[in-house]
Amino acid sequence: MISKPKYYTFADKQDDELLLDCGRSLAPVTLAYETYGSLDDKKSNAILILHALSGDAHAAGRHHSDDRKPGWWDNTIGHGKAFDTDKYFIICSNVIGGCKGSTGPASINPATGKPYGTSFPMITIRDMVRAQKRLIDHLGIEKLLAVAGGSMGGMQVLEWAICYPDRIRAAIPLATTARLSAQSIAFNEVGRQAIVSDPYWCGGDYYGKKQPTNGLALARMIAHITYLSDESMHKKFGRRLQNRDNYSYDFITDFQVESYLHHQGESFIKRFDANSYLYITRAMDYFDLSAEKGSLKKALEGVKARFLVVSFSSDWLFPTYQSKDIASALRKNDVDVSFCEIASSYGHDAFLLEAEQLSPLISGFLDSTYKGAFL
Amino acid sequence: MISKPKYYTFADKQDDELLLDCGRSLAPVTLAYETYGSLDDKKSNAILILHALSGDAHAAGRHHSDDRKPGWWDNTIGHGKAFDTDKYFIICSNVIGGCKGSTGPASINPATGKPYGTSFPMITIRDMVRAQKRLIDHLGIEKLLAVAGGSMGGMQVLEWAICYPDRIRAAIPLATTARLSAQSIAFNEVGRQAIVSDPYWCGGDYYGKKQPTNGLALARMIAHITYLSDESMHKKFGRRLQNRDNYSYDFITDFQVESYLHHQGESFIKRFDANSYLYITRAMDYFDLSAEKGSLKKALEGVKARFLVVSFSSDWLFPTYQSKDIASALRKNDVDVSFCEIASSYGHDAFLLEAEQLSPLISGFLDSTYKGAFL
Repeated sequence: MISKPKYYTFADKQDDELLLDCGRSLAPVTLAYETYGSLDDKKSNAILILHALSGDAHAAGRHHSDDRKPGWWDNTIGHGKAFDTDKYFIICSNVIGGCKGSTGPASINPATGKPYGTSFPMITIRDMVRAQKRLIDHLGIEKLLAVAGGSMGGMQVLEWAICYPDRIRAAIPLATTARLSAQSIAFNEVGRQAIVSDPYWCGGDYYGKKQPTNGLALARMIAHITYLSDESMHKKFGRRLQNRDNYSYDFITDFQVESYLHHQGESFIKRFDANSYLYITRAMDYFDLSAEKGSLKKALEGVKARFLVVSFSSDWLFPTYQSKDIASALRKNDVDVSFCEIASSYGHDAFLLEAEQLSPLISGFLDSTYKGAFL
Repeated sequence: MISKPKYYTFADKQDDELLLDCGRSLAPVTLAYETYGSLDDKKSNAILILHALSGDAHAAGRHHSDDRKPGWWDNTIGHGKAFDTDKYFIICSNVIGGCKGSTGPASINPATGKPYGTSFPMITIRDMVRAQKRLIDHLGIEKLLAVAGGSMGGMQVLEWAICYPDRIRAAIPLATTARLSAQSIAFNEVGRQAIVSDPYWCGGDYYGKKQPTNGLALARMIAHITYLSDESMHKKFGRRLQNRDNYSYDFITDFQVESYLHHQGESFIKRFDANSYLYITRAMDYFDLSAEKGSLKKALEGVKARFLVVSFSSDWLFPTYQSKDIASALRKNDVDVSFCEIASSYGHDAFLLEAEQLSPLISGFLDSTYKGAFL
């Protein structure tokens, strides 16, 4: 499947800016997105896919037939897959604050003609969803069949269900939480400290100069440990050495797991912007659905969508108890909710890797939602 | 209790150097240590306490009556406590490679007259124990009643039992492992990367100059997350804000957990040397008892000490399954072993904090060992 990057820009005229939770506003706003499959005549088969921290709009297919890798969720989106492009029109939207074609800290600030850097306004998960809603309006879709996403994508799913209850029929939050835990905030903060401690960060004003690559690579290495599990790291690397039979008794890379982490850090700096990493992790820190109304049950009171909530047994970043909290609060509001914990050793990354276990759940849930919509 | 720093230097004459696993040797070698209680006439009541990564010889009491804090394990060592100084003679030895009075990378290299820095030889847990054995020889103690320690201290306990089976009656490894997991190696490596990425690290040659404090603080912050648990961080901080009612929508410290981590980082740089952090974490990475002989059971074949193995339920750095592996391998060798998992929400730090649950186990085990020694 060949997929194509698309862009939608709004608020490029007056009085149309995006109002943000922080009190500031953003204009103009560009969203990068991709679509797969076809929108039916009734515009009833559209599904919005929302990505995680380091994701982008390129969820499936290849931009060029010789691309080494397809989009990040290609194992669930396409012909005959969980998000079946023969049946559904799939939209994946990049988030604001990011660096993959949507407006973010690397974008030009129209007031100065220079990149925003840290003058970019702080954004929240809800702000990301506000921007996506403009895209869905622009596409002329009155009601999405579903919104789906894992990790930070799942947070956006929850915000969609709360903010625009009449605009979605179903919600699929995977490997996610209704509020970031102290432990997760802590991991985000050490990642940010790695970046701002890099002498090349320069208060965020590094565009066109040497980049804070060491800091960003280190932030990614730290985070990457939290995406795997003790068990998956043991299976994948154990204590195996990298290209040697004995310890070096030096500080070079002895273990495969070290080499793997370094590789993760080095590839990340080629595709991600350090300031975006700061903004998006902060948006996650601020995410707490229960804060505004005093409880998660109250926050979910207006929800109309049916839900499929999925967690993964070895995910210690967003453990099963956090998904259970979501399912439980939904049930207290008499929302139609299915909850499933998938047995997996892959840790948090399981939502990207366990397509075989995940797909029947998603396709069955989407089928019944689609049929139910026309009863 | 007023305690006093002591020092023992060996290998300050020829042909007495400490041979290390890396093939190099170290001379002279100083060990900082402290003792509490009195050695009995038969020299039969000595217990050696071994510390964790960032610990030191100051395990109990205060050096000055107005010291704000006592030694790191003061809640288990002293009059009427688990390691009862009315009954036992307690020795706590600092490790080589450290920076708390024992020979380490900040020590003067006699060959150059300058601090070793990264010319210090790589050390292993076994090397630490080899040095301690010289101290015990020097103190004229033929047989220790027990060796005890948590985390990296527990690794040293295991090496004592294997290397010097006739020199100890009992072993108490707490919250430890027989080999470092891939996940733990990964956390150590990101900590080291934080240090070596600090521009002031200068290849380890920073003594007398500006120190790599940012890198060391960051390494400590990362590690500190692994010492707590999701639950203990939730209880201790939750999502509470630091001196504010609302989000700042800025990158300043919003959350209490961030403030706490920063404080941990800032206090650590006052008391620890960055190069020591590199050497000691590497020693932990290299620790794998099963590697040499092919299995943990074989590694423990010559063990004569009786064992008390303790893990803590919420410790995800050295989880209970790792302690069970030790207990199980000991049992296969017909070693007298008691294993206990203590229910605690404190994570890895539980071995320092759960004195109330830990003390009856330890004192009962020591009592029966002491009585058994004279049957």
